[in-house]
Order: sequence, then structure tokens, then C-alpha cells
Amino acid sequence: QGILERLDAGEIVIGDGGFVFALEKRGYVKAGPWTPEATVEHPEAVRQLHREFIRAGSNVLQTFTFYASEDKLENRGNYVAEKISCQKVNEAACDIAREVANEGDALVAGGVSQTPSYLSCKDETEVKAAFRKQLEVFMKKNVDFLIAEYFEHVEEAVWAVEVLKESGKPVAATMCIGPEGDMHGVPPGQCAVQLVKAGASIVGVNCHFDPDTSLETVKLMKEGLQAAKLKAHLMSQPLAFHTPDCGKQGFIDLPEFPFGLEPRIVTRWDIQKYARKAYDLGIRFIGGCCGFEPYHIRAIAEELAPERGFLPEASDKHGSWGDNLSMHTKPWVRARARKEYWENLKPASGRPYCPSMSKPDGWGVTKGARELMQQKEATTKQQLKELFQKQK
Amino acid sequence: QGILERLDAGEIVIGDGGFVFALEKRGYVKAGPWTPEATVEHPEAVRQLHREFIRAGSNVLQTFTFYASEDKLENRGNYVAEKISCQKVNEAACDIAREVANEGDALVAGGVSQTPSYLSCKDETEVKAAFRKQLEVFMKKNVDFLIAEYFEHVEEAVWAVEVLKESGKPVAATMCIGPEGDMHGVPPGQCAVQLVKAGASIVGVNCHFDPDTSLETVKLMKEGLQAAKLKAHLMSQPLAFHTPDCGKQGFIDLPEFPFGLEPRIVTRWDIQKYARKAYDLGIRFIGGCCGFEPYHIRAIAEELAPERGFLPEASDKHGSWGDNLSMHTKPWVRARARKEYWENLKPASGRPYCPSMSKPDGWGVTKGARELMQQKEATTKQQLKELFQKQK
Amino acid sequence: QGILERLDAGEIVIGDGGFVFALEKRGYVKAGPWTPEATVEHPEAVRQLHREFIRAGSNVLQTFTFYASEDKLENRGNYVAEKISCQKVNEAACDIAREVANEGDALVAGGVSQTPSYLSCKDETEVKAAFRKQLEVFMKKNVDFLIAEYFEHVEEAVWAVEVLKESGKPVAATMCIGPEGDMHGVPPGQCAVQLVKAGASIVGVNCHFDPDTSLETVKLMKEGLQAAKLKAHLMSQPLAFHTPDCGKQGFIDLPEFPFGLEPRIVTRWDIQKYARKAYDLGIRFIGGCCGFEPYHIRAIAEELAPERGFLPEASDKHGSWGDNLSMHTKPWVRARARKEYWENLKPASGRPYCPSMSKPDGWGVTKGARELMQQKEATTKQQLKELFQKQK
Amino acid sequence: QGILERLDAGEIVIGDGGFVFALEKRGYVKAGPWTPEATVEHPEAVRQLHREFIRAGSNVLQTFTFYASEDKLENRGNYVAEKISCQKVNEAACDIAREVANEGDALVAGGVSQTPSYLSCKDETEVKAAFRKQLEVFMKKNVDFLIAEYFEHVEEAVWAVEVLKESGKPVAATMCIGPEGDMHGVPPGQCAVQLVKAGASIVGVNCHFDPDTSLETVKLMKEGLQAAKLKAHLMSQPLAFHTPDCGKQGFIDLPEFPFGLEPRIVTRWDIQKYARKAYDLGIRFIGGCCGFEPYHIRAIAEELAPERGFLPEASDKHGSWGDNLSMHTKPWVRARARKEYWENLKPASGRPYCPSMSKPDGWGVTKGARELMQQKEATTKQQLKELFQKQK
Repeated sequence: QGILERLDAGEIVIGDGGFVFALEKRGYVKAGPWTPEATVEHPEAVRQLHREFIRAGSNVLQTFTFYASEDKLENRGNYVAEKISCQKVNEAACDIAREVANEGDALVAGGVSQTPSYLSCKDETEVKAAFRKQLEVFMKKNVDFLIAEYFEHVEEAVWAVEVLKESGKPVAATMCIGPEGDMHGVPPGQCAVQLVKAGASIVGVNCHFDPDTSLETVKLMKEGLQAAKLKAHLMSQPLAFHTPDCGKQGFIDLPEFPFGLEPRIVTRWDIQKYARKAYDLGIRFIGGCCGFEPYHIRAIAEELAPERGFLPEASDKHGSWGDNLSMHTKPWVRARARKEYWENLKPASGRPYCPSMSKPDGWGVTKGARELMQQKEATTKQQLKELFQKQK
Repeated sequence: QGILERLDAGEIVIGDGGFVFALEKRGYVKAGPWTPEATVEHPEAVRQLHREFIRAGSNVLQTFTFYASEDKLENRGNYVAEKISCQKVNEAACDIAREVANEGDALVAGGVSQTPSYLSCKDETEVKAAFRKQLEVFMKKNVDFLIAEYFEHVEEAVWAVEVLKESGKPVAATMCIGPEGDMHGVPPGQCAVQLVKAGASIVGVNCHFDPDTSLETVKLMKEGLQAAKLKAHLMSQPLAFHTPDCGKQGFIDLPEFPFGLEPRIVTRWDIQKYARKAYDLGIRFIGGCCGFEPYHIRAIAEELAPERGFLPEASDKHGSWGDNLSMHTKPWVRARARKEYWENLKPASGRPYCPSMSKPDGWGVTKGARELMQQKEATTKQQLKELFQKQK
Repeated sequence: QGILERLDAGEIVIGDGGFVFALEKRGYVKAGPWTPEATVEHPEAVRQLHREFIRAGSNVLQTFTFYASEDKLENRGNYVAEKISCQKVNEAACDIAREVANEGDALVAGGVSQTPSYLSCKDETEVKAAFRKQLEVFMKKNVDFLIAEYFEHVEEAVWAVEVLKESGKPVAATMCIGPEGDMHGVPPGQCAVQLVKAGASIVGVNCHFDPDTSLETVKLMKEGLQAAKLKAHLMSQPLAFHTPDCGKQGFIDLPEFPFGLEPRIVTRWDIQKYARKAYDLGIRFIGGCCGFEPYHIRAIAEELAPERGFLPEASDKHGSWGDNLSMHTKPWVRARARKEYWENLKPASGRPYCPSMSKPDGWGVTKGARELMQQKEATTKQQLKELFQKQK
Repeated sequence: QGILERLDAGEIVIGDGGFVFALEKRGYVKAGPWTPEATVEHPEAVRQLHREFIRAGSNVLQTFTFYASEDKLENRGNYVAEKISCQKVNEAACDIAREVANEGDALVAGGVSQTPSYLSCKDETEVKAAFRKQLEVFMKKNVDFLIAEYFEHVEEAVWAVEVLKESGKPVAATMCIGPEGDMHGVPPGQCAVQLVKAGASIVGVNCHFDPDTSLETVKLMKEGLQAAKLKAHLMSQPLAFHTPDCGKQGFIDLPEFPFGLEPRIVTRWDIQKYARKAYDLGIRFIGGCCGFEPYHIRAIAEELAPERGFLPEASDKHGSWGDNLSMHTKPWVRARARKEYWENLKPASGRPYCPSMSKPDGWGVTKGARELMQQKEATTKQQLKELFQKQK
């Protein structure tokens, strides 16, 4: 059954977690470029991570093609073009995802994300050409559906959706925005409307913000769609980091990004709360992005097990709400084998010399630009271009 | 070259990280029992983790045989004895470690750890029999050397060393204690002396405490050995969690153990500081325990690269001190591409409703027992037994 | 010179600090009732506090008549009506304020605040009668001007201003609201407009929120007045507690109110920042409310000394930005004798087991009521009455 | 009844709070010099503070003669010697204390503290002469007993006790040290023994550390006296600031000293716990030092009311454990009117950008000196002198 059949039937579809962050920690992805040449260099590592997600309950395996557009791979300069072509990276990603998906009951989704071409103000034709190049691979490898994800500007996201729709396959679209809207100042509700009108069947957010903030944004999208009398499935794939203190551009601007985010990592119990809240909001495609490890995905599957009627395979190695502690030799550890305990725990950081929140960087530098955006005077690409040039 | 040849020559030997915690998050180990049946059930997952550590710079791959003594495996009841025998688990662990070790320049170390037999007050013969059973497998599989690790009582650790020495292979011994000493009240210096006298060539600590606390303990061991005019190599494999607030039994007693430790996870920069401090203290076998992921091991290898003269393979995907951020599109993220930035960052928890420290559990319950121990009136096993019975 | 002459001439007028909190700590006011019978029972204590504020730089001494309306004094039941009448309390307050004002260059302001009559839904005539009773005393004692302060509902504040205007004296009006507006949902800008139309020459906020939040609210008031093309002087008298985490009704709902607020107390340096920011916003009547001690008022006077051309008397006992530390015996304490040090200090709480923020109480209980208010469906007194009754 | 009659009879004697910090905030004392010329300049302010302490329950009023030795007053240069002599300051302090003591049931204690003469290495004769000068005033004004307080070196404290004993009046002696002992490395137990041998009838600690740390130190003093088979009454007058993070020299070295200590201020509930713990430890002279405001002293009196059989006067304006909140209009504030609530509250700082602990300054600078002291190689005054000279 395809993604739309499942969602139309009211099924909960569990997404996967964050590849670039997990593989950076495992030693296969370089922070900064964040490109996925590991699909060619170390397929076994990518395969293993897919497998862990599928065991944890993922119903969708996204091809590991984040930032795998040709312009990005070149721009970041972290692979030798002669040896590993953009095409090879994308093809290998499809092959690995399909191989693991076949081990279980998962769909393969081909993914495109925002391009340097757009940010450097190339025109629609050029930007769309980049997406089309990746789409060709996805069609050749016959992925099950397509996701346009990690877009800061709805204008570019719409272009991506338009290209992906050429395939005839179902298209999902998620933006990496918060409740304040996209970088041009378009509010979430309007973004959702534009994406659905462009052809997306599933819309929502991914990355950049923590679960709570992301759900707030999806709520605004939902309201926007309702007001416009449009229908679409909702989707959320937030960070697995607490970011109550971040600004409009999310966790990138936090001083801890990307090498000091550890104290912000969410627990499995935080994820159970997120899964429940997402479900209650009407979201049925529920996954994660950067920071989401396999055990976070399992937490979604365990929280929604009553609704779904089954547990994922990896729950063989996990008790519900810590019940595997009930046989511990120490009575006070046994006392932790219950839901109330973990639900109410306020975990200490063990870092008494550190604060609990940070001020995001960069607000000084771009203040002018951002204010204009917020005043919605910069809603066209041309204006944004000028702003960025002024800033330099 | 064997472990002692390397250490005698003044080489730095980098250990590996924590298997049970990493594989719990990946979905292959159950928290609570913490047993390693994954070596048989999912060898590909164990193999992949070994591979990540060797890529990150580990010179020693420990067989994944933690808590793999027969009594433990039975006691925790998490595998069907008919299907997966203790022998099979240990043999598979050896095979996987050797396979990956051969891919690079690593030694294989067979490991034993504390037994339920000892804690339930079985006698020396019985406890030693358990160790001997594992040792047989290690001999058959011809590991390079042996480690007795994770002992809370020096008495049991000495028994383990005595058994392992029967093999003729070099023996390392690490206890999971802090500066206050073992659970019978034997101070670290005395523990070290007893272990060396029993035949250990390498002594130190692993698990239960954060890097800073662990180094304090190793320092006390070093001083004890010097006072006794004994020689041994030093070793440290601490937690990758900040635990300034824990008591004598370490992180087990913290309310966050084991499912809410996320905000305590150390950064790669914390590990670079740890590696430097360990080196300066004269420790030459430097690794990690629970919480140590491959990127933490890489941080040891990168910090000590000047001394060692080379970087590990996984440093292809990592810049020194964040220098891979120097090409970021945002100037304020580029500004993070330097040592001073990460060295001085005080990372926020993103959790303003949480405290920075916790009170360890369990002190009430065992107060009598602990006080007696601290008064060193309970240094015999018999006394401990009585204390534990009184507590029930 | 009267208050309006001063403000019209562009002078900065410094208010006084918080009487009920300061005198509670000194042992003369009871938390809960917060009534000012101390003016009769212990005039020397009230006189001393006035004196400290005038020494610190206050140009206005408010009569200590907070919650001194007859209905409030009866309602709280904390004085014997036969012995201390409402009139006596108010008269004594006027006498003490005048006595101390004459020692320096300060004006006396008679103050009224919100009444239980309004909250229990008495009608306009009855509520105004309560204000008139206090006003009679103020007229008899010939105070210099009048302040209607600490109002949660603009409707009642307008009634107060209308009564006070009957005197012919200048009237200031401050509400204890945040940026979300009054308890009926009237936004700050509209509140300001209504108050000025009712006759107030000076408008602003006092109490309930920290300096930053309060300035945000005054900014909204200023914008409201500008949009309505109305002119008035601006005034702010915030809390001296950090309250980034409080909800619509301010610090009352924080779990720490009123006996655990210590870790939130602002430093003198926080106040210097507040004074500067208030000044830059165009506020010229700058003072404080609960938590403001004499040294906080002195901090306003010191920050604005360049603009005012003089320092307050109490600055004889204080160096600018800690320069009195320059002769300390310890070099590292001497190093604190400079502006950059104190300006940038992030003071530790010394409380590692406590969080940095709290969730306000009471949101559950009044959720229905509050939501309706926010939807501005409850802008009439009648509706509020019904809501409060439903809540019981 | 004199101080010893009371203590010998088993009575609890409540001390007073901190004058220099309270009067600094009120505008009468300059931080840095911390000298008490206010007794002459503003006697009404000193009188009022005494009165607040006596109302709060103090049984002892200490003359406000802190740092009022002639050498200190000259050294700090903050008064014109011709106008206000050392003698005048001390005499005025005695007169004010006696006047207020006569209003209630309090004793007057004349106090001396450490001198610049000692720190600049003047000899015993000279240092004793400074104490004798103050003692002459105390004898002329006939104080009830004498306190030698705030000594960092037991050698100087012993000299002070010896001088004060010449008067024939009872002598109490408190040092501003922590569990690590005095600045020469003499442990608390030995300090206590030396002070009692010199003639002190009451010994303990004041200032520099928080209540918990101070009680630990007094416990060590008690054990020292027991081991030496000496008898004396115990006394504690700690800070009202949380200082879990300070080093050997206490809060002076914390980066927040003295103008950023606000978030560390203890609550009244913290003080009730302190009073109980002090009582349980056998301390019967229980008071406070810097940071202690009248309401903190009242908290001691309220906590120990069951033992003493009465409440202080100021409890007329305070309910036990917040019971004055039971009539609040909001149900969730009424819910705070109980002991369990305040006892268990973990008060938030409202400062999410600040840490919970600080690293004390100055350890680098004096490391050599401190280490020598700790090794007790510097126990003579001569050695200390050399160390301080080396440091410059």
C-alpha cells in the first residue's frame, strides 16, 4: 500500500530519524558540508542506520540524499567529482533504502532539499533543473513517493513540489520554519496553502526547531488550510533537541550548533509526549530529523502502540516506561520502573557552570534584513537578494 | 605488537567506547539486564559498532562480553538457554571483534566483569569458576590480552585477575569506583596495590563516574602504587556523562539513570580536555565506557594526534576544533570555526524547568551499610553479606 | 515645582520603591493582606523607609496607602476597626510622607489602588465612593498630586482617575498589566487611551512584571497614544524580580510568590540597564514597585546622573560601577572595580538543585475564563462576573 | 540574666543579622571599606535596624562596631579623622545598641574583628593595642559581654580573646572559616581548642559561608573540643547566601561578591531548616551575618518557637509557614498556605541565561601560598608574611 492509501485509511505512518547527525557521530558525515557521499563510500554504515530505524518502527525510509543536489555537492567540495558523481550518490542511496525497506514493511521516499542555487539567487529554471536531476534518479530507481524537505523559503519549496509532481508520484513537503514563518516572512498557514496548491498531498515541518515549537507551526499550517478550505495530510519531523531559546532561523543560530548540542538532546519520554501531542493535533505522518536516534523513533512507536495495535521489533529490547528496571538489585532503581517516574522527571544537566538558555547569534548582523522581512516588505526574491548583499 | 610492548614503548593506546549504552539506543540491548546476546542475534550491529570505534581510532577492541558470565545471563533471564548458550555469546563476541580488528591495527581484549555470584555471597571457588568459563572461550579464540573490568569490590577483582593470569596473557584490571574507594571501603590506592600484586600489568577505573572524577581516582591509584613501590601501566575508561553530583556508587544512583541521562552527555570538547588531562597524569591506555560514542573516541585520537603523529581514519569527516565550519554561509557560524570558541563554550541545556544537579537516590536506604563501610568496619565479605541482609 | 511642571520641562522624575515588600521583610507588614496599618502602629519604620528612598534619589514619595481603602482594610480583617480607622491610616501616611519630603526636594503623591468592591462586582457608584473616601484625606492633607496605581482592569482604573480628577490636582495612572493587556483583554494601547481620556496626565505600568516586560508594555501604551494622537507623560514602576516565565497575571501566579522570590531579585546593575532603557523609550517618571529597595532606586539615579547633572545623597556611600572595590586587598576583587565586569556578569544562583524558570500556577483553573477574555468576548464587567462565578 | 546564665540554663539565644550588608542596601554603609561611621552620621538608621532585629526575636544586639578599629578606619580613609574619631564611632554604637536593647529583653555585645595591623604583619603588642582601644569604650559603656568575630587566622583571634578577657566579661569568639580551617591551615577543631584555652566561653563561626557549610565547620569545632575534653557553648552566624561553590576563603572570592549576590539570597524557609539543624547539632547561640535581614532572624525564632515557648513580636505580621495566604482570592495561591509547599519548593532564579554555580576567583594567583598553607608549612606568621610578599 502506498503512502496516500495508508494515510487516507487513517493509519499512523512513522517516519525515520536524522541521518546527518547520527552518521556524523558515527564518523561518516562531515559537519558543515553535511553531504551524503557515505552512500558510496560506506554503504554498510548507511544500511545499518536504515535497519535500526526500520527495527524501531519506521514505515518510511528516506533515501539518504540530503544536500545531494549537484550544486550542493560541488559547492561543498568534499568529494572528488571524477570519482563520486551526484548521480552515483543518489543511486546508491536509493539502492540501500530499497534493500532495507524490503526487509520489512516500509516505503522508500526520495528526498530533495533546498539548494545553494536558490540562495545565490539563481532563477526558477536553474533551480528546478537541480531538482529534476535528482528526480531522474528517483524515477529510475522507482521510489514509492517523494519528499521536498528542509526549505526555508516557500517560493523554492513550491518550485520543488512542482518538479516532483511531474513524476506522478505522491509528494510530501516540509519546511524548516517556526511559527514566525519562512525567511521572507510568509506565515506557516500561507506556506501550507501554497504547497498544497502546488500539488503536495502531505505538508508540515522538519528540522530547525524542537518538537513543541514544530507542533505549534504545524498547528498554524492546519489552520491556514482550514481557512482556505484545502485538504492535506499533516507531517512533522522536528529536531531531537530542546530549543526554547532559538530565533526565527532555528538551531543553526544557537551558539551550541553543531558541536555543543548534547545537553539539549531530548529523552525518549520527551518523544512519547511529542508523539501523543502530534497525534492529538491530527498529524499522522510522525517522524524526526536531526538528533533523532533509533530509540527516539521507537518511542513514537511505543507511545502510539495502543492506536496501532502493535509494537516495533526493537521493543523486544525495551520495556514500556522503564519496566525493565523492575528486577534491578537496588530497590531505589526498581522504583523507577513506572510511567509516573519518567513522565515527571526533570533531568539535571550535571553542568552547574552552564546556563539553561542561550541567546541566538546573528541577530545583530542581520537585524535590518530580518526586520524588513518581518514587516513583509521583502517578500520577493529580488528584495531578499538586495538585503543579503547589503549585509556583506 | 602486544599491549605491553606498546605501553612499555611509551605508546598511547586508545580504548573503545561503551557498547551497552550505544546498542541500547540502536535497539539491540535491553537496559536493566544489559546483556550481550546481540553478538548472536544481530552480529551485523555489533560488527558495525566495532568498526566505528576502529575508524575513530581505537587500538583495542574489547569483546562484547559484558555481563556474559553464565550466572548473569541466567539471572537476567533474557535469553532462552537452549537457544543461546553463554558459550555461544562469548564465542560470537570474540569472532566479531577479531574480524574487525583484522581490518585495522587493533588488539582484541577478552573481558570479564563482576558476577551475581559474588554479590549473592557465593564463595571464591564458585566465583572463580564463572570467570574460568569465560576465559576458556577467550583462550580458544586466542584473544590478545584480558581485561577484568567493572568491579565494585576489589576482593572479587583480585579473584578475576588471578583466574585471568592462569592464561599467561597480559591482564588489565579496572574498577568502577570513585575517589572514596570500593564498596567495602578500600581506598583506590590500596585497590591498585592489591590488583598489581595479584598479577595485573595495567590498572585503573572504568564506568560509574565522569572523566574528571575518574581521573581523580586514577591519581589516587597512582599514588598508592608509588607509595608501595609497585609499577603498572595506568588506564581510564570513564562515563561520557557529567556526574558531579553522584555519590559513592556512581551514576546508577542518580535519578536520571538510565533513561534520562541525555542532558549530561559530554561534548567532544569535554573529551579532548579529558584526553589531555589523562595524558598529563601519565595514563597511556585511554578510552571510555557507557555513553562514549565513536565521535568521543575520535576526540581522544584528535587531541593526542600531536603526540601520536597521526589522525584516525574518521577524522576525514571531522575538522580540528570545528574548522569545517569555516565555509558556512552565515558569518556568525563561521566565527565558530576555532578552538577558543568551543573550548570556552558553556553549552545551555535548553531546559529552563530542570535543575543542574540531582540528589542521588538510595542514600537513605543504605545509610547504615554505607556508614559502616566508610568506617572500614565492613571490609570482609561476611560483614557485607550481613549488612545487605539487614537492609532488606 | 509640581510634577507636571517638572515633566513638561523635560526633567527626569525618580519614583520610590516597594513599601509592602520592604516592610514585610522588616517586620511591619503582613504578606497576604499587605495592608499599611504600620503608618499608625510603627510610624518610625515607615518614616525611615521614606528617608532611605529620598536619600537614594526619589523625587516623589508616595503615601503608604496601598490597599488602604475602607473595604480592603475591612475585608482583610487585620486591624481592629475601632482602634485604627481607614481615615487614621491614610492621614498618618500623608503626615509621614510630607514630613520626610520636607527634608529634601520631593513631592508627595496620594495613591489609590484597586478595590475588593470592584472585584466582587459592586457598581460604579460604590467603587467610586471608596476612592472618594481616600481622596478626602489626600485633599485635607494637601498632597501634591495623585496616583491611581495597581489596577488589573482599565474600567476600574478609569473610575479611579475620574474621582481623583475631581480634586483638580494632576493625576497619574498605572496598571499592573503586561503586554497581553488587562484582565478583560483590553490591550495596553487602548488602556492608555482610556486613561488619558479620563483625565490622567501621566500613564504607565507598575508591579506584576519585571523591568523588561514592563517596558514592553509601556511601549505598547506609547504606540496606542500616538495612534490616537493623544499626549501624556510615561511612567514605569516595575518589580525588582526577574519574571520571564510569568503569565498574564504576573508574579502572583508564580509558585515562588510571595515567600520564595529571593533568587529572582534583580541586581543594581540590572536596574541601571532598566533606567537607561526606560529613558531611551521616552519614559521620564521612573521608579519601582515590589522588591525595589533603596539601593535599586539609587541605581536609577546613578545611571541617569549624566542627564540629571547630580548624584543622590546616598551615593556618598556608593561608587560608580563598583569603583569602591579598587582599594581591596585582593587583586582579583580589585579587578571587579569596573563597569564591564558588572555589566557582563551572569550571576550564579548558588542553587544547583533548582530550575531557572517555573510554570505559573492557576492556568488550568481559569483557562476558560482567560480564553474568553483573550477572545475579548468578556469586555464588560457583567461577563467577568459570570465567569468568576462559573469558576467557583 | 547574662549570656552565660542563659546558655548554661539551656536557653536558646538568638543573635542578630548582618549590619553592613543591610545598611549598604539602605544607603548608609560603603561596600569595600564596610566601616560603621553611620553610628555617628545616621544614628536613626542604625537604631531602626537594631529595632527590627529585636522585634524579629534577637536576644543579643551587637554594637555596630565592625571594622571599627582605629587602624581600619584610617586605612579605609572613608571618614575625616578630625570629625569622627574611632572613639566616637564606637561610643555611638554602644549607646544606640543599649537604647534599643532596653526596649526589650536583649543583651548588648561589644564586638571586635580582624585588623589590618595583623594582615600587614604588625606584632602581637601592636595588634593587641588596637583591640584594647575598642575594649576601653566597651568597658566605659558597660556592654554585657564581648564578641571577637570575623577572624581568618586563629592566631589573631586568640590575641583578641586574650585582650577581651582582661575585662572580666564573658567572651565569645567566632571565626570566618570553613571546614578547611583557617588561612594558616589550622583545622576548625584546633581553632576551637585554642580559642577556649585562651578564655572564650562560646566558640563558633560567622560570615564567609552559607548555613550548611558553617554548620559543618561548627561540627568539626565541636568534635575538636570533645576530643580535647574541653567545654564551651557553640555559636553560628553564617551568611544568608547560598555558597556551595566557594573555596577556602568563602564568598569574597565568588565573582558575584559583593554586588551580584542577589540570586543567592536564602529564603525564610532555608533559614528555618538552618535553625533546626543548628539546634539539633547542639548550637544554642544561633544568629546570622551578611545578608541576614530581620525576616531571616524571625525565621529562626519561629522555627524554634516550640522549644522556646513564645513567638517574637514581629510574628504578629507573619503567619507560620505561609498560613497568611489562606484567605487569598485565588485558589492556587491559597494552596500555598502550608508547610509542605514551602518546605519542598525549589525556587526558580528567573535567570535562564545564568549558571547555577561559579568558579571562585583568585585561586590561580595565590595557588602557591594556599598550597603551602594547606601543607601546614606556613603555620607561623613570619612564613605567611613572606608568602604574601612573594605574591605581589
